[in-house]
Amino acid sequence: MERTVVVASGGLDSSTLLYLLKDKGHEVEALAFDYGQRHRVELERAEEISRKLGIAFQLVSIEPIGKLIAGKSSQLNLEVAVPEGHYESKSMKTTVVPNRNMIFLSIAVGRAIALGFSNVAFGAHSGDHAIYPDCRQDFSKTLAKAVELCDWKKINLISPFVQFKKWEIVLLGSTLGVPFERTWSCYKGGTRHCGRCGTCVERREAFSLAGVTDPTEYENE
Amino acid sequence: MERTVVVASGGLDSSTLLYLLKDKGHEVEALAFDYGQRHRVELERAEEISRKLGIAFQLVSIEPIGKLIAGKSSQLNLEVAVPEGHYESKSMKTTVVPNRNMIFLSIAVGRAIALGFSNVAFGAHSGDHAIYPDCRQDFSKTLAKAVELCDWKKINLISPFVQFKKWEIVLLGSTLGVPFERTWSCYKGGTRHCGRCGTCVERREAFSLAGVTDPTEYENE
Repeated sequence: MERTVVVASGGLDSSTLLYLLKDKGHEVEALAFDYGQRHRVELERAEEISRKLGIAFQLVSIEPIGKLIAGKSSQLNLEVAVPEGHYESKSMKTTVVPNRNMIFLSIAVGRAIALGFSNVAFGAHSGDHAIYPDCRQDFSKTLAKAVELCDWKKINLISPFVQFKKWEIVLLGSTLGVPFERTWSCYKGGTRHCGRCGTCVERREAFSLAGVTDPTEYENE
Repeated sequence: MERTVVVASGGLDSSTLLYLLKDKGHEVEALAFDYGQRHRVELERAEEISRKLGIAFQLVSIEPIGKLIAGKSSQLNLEVAVPEGHYESKSMKTTVVPNRNMIFLSIAVGRAIALGFSNVAFGAHSGDHAIYPDCRQDFSKTLAKAVELCDWKKINLISPFVQFKKWEIVLLGSTLGVPFERTWSCYKGGTRHCGRCGTCVERREAFSLAGVTDPTEYENE
């Protein structure tokens, strides 16, 4: 049986990934990271979705790392406003968290080694890389090679959505029964999706392109 | 001016690395990690050496990660005894901490990006790889390629000792004035070096091969 640690953020992508791997028969442990993010409501959602799916869930507190790398990221530095507008616009660059993927993945790989699991998975997709350097396919591929060498036993780093567009993930998720209404994307945190920040705009667009009804309640329609 | 974040453990190798980079004119920030290690006395030593050298020092608390990846590592799981004997013997494998280098380095890279520094350095040397998969040169090289891609601006991962033997580091350190008596290696922690665990055996051997007087006070001569 394949056994896989999954980096889970409570969002559309990683939740669909959990459903996909469970559907494929993997034994899955979901890891969520509390790094002091503005939108930490996502952590409750990641846990809720994992429970619903009947898989193991671990919340890892790494707030001191968040403080260390905060810099000018709007997601960690509360003095920097969350930009509104389209995901691919330049203003979105303030939402980048320095080296977030490598940090999360390296911890997930350590966990996989400790558990004796052979795989680590994450939900980067092709739309991400316009803004996030560590969502580029080249980055994933190269990091996967380093991950293969970090232990005596080979660990596989898998990112099944790296060539998907976001709407394709929504389409896949809808066939897998992902409870989209319980996933969380909004960068602003709060209790309802704002509907205007980059990730809300991207989320709405993805449902629309996929032709799947968007169950999200947005603050601004 | 080169600006470099250095992973500092208070040991011989990373302390010599701090002295080397300072000598070369780098602006240096030392990062030390409290991950719940048995030998956390090393953290005080890392701080002391950084202060002596007049460089910035950051202690990062990541104990929840230590708990997550503890498994059967003698350095994190206090129920597993620290093995005694030669560094290269099979029994030393219990001292491996899963994916430690990638975890530390990914955080150090995030820090470098936040600070606007271009380099991250660590002190892996050629003797380490007999036991530690993540001290192999292939691992460092491959990870360095991933690090180059993790941000829009290139970050260099440097490991100047990766082809050095431990005694060569001692020899270099002695010319740079490293206060060896204040560095800490012993895996057992405590207040004096035990003289018998793998890293104590390696430490003694390195001074002897380098022809440098070993200032360490060992519990067992």
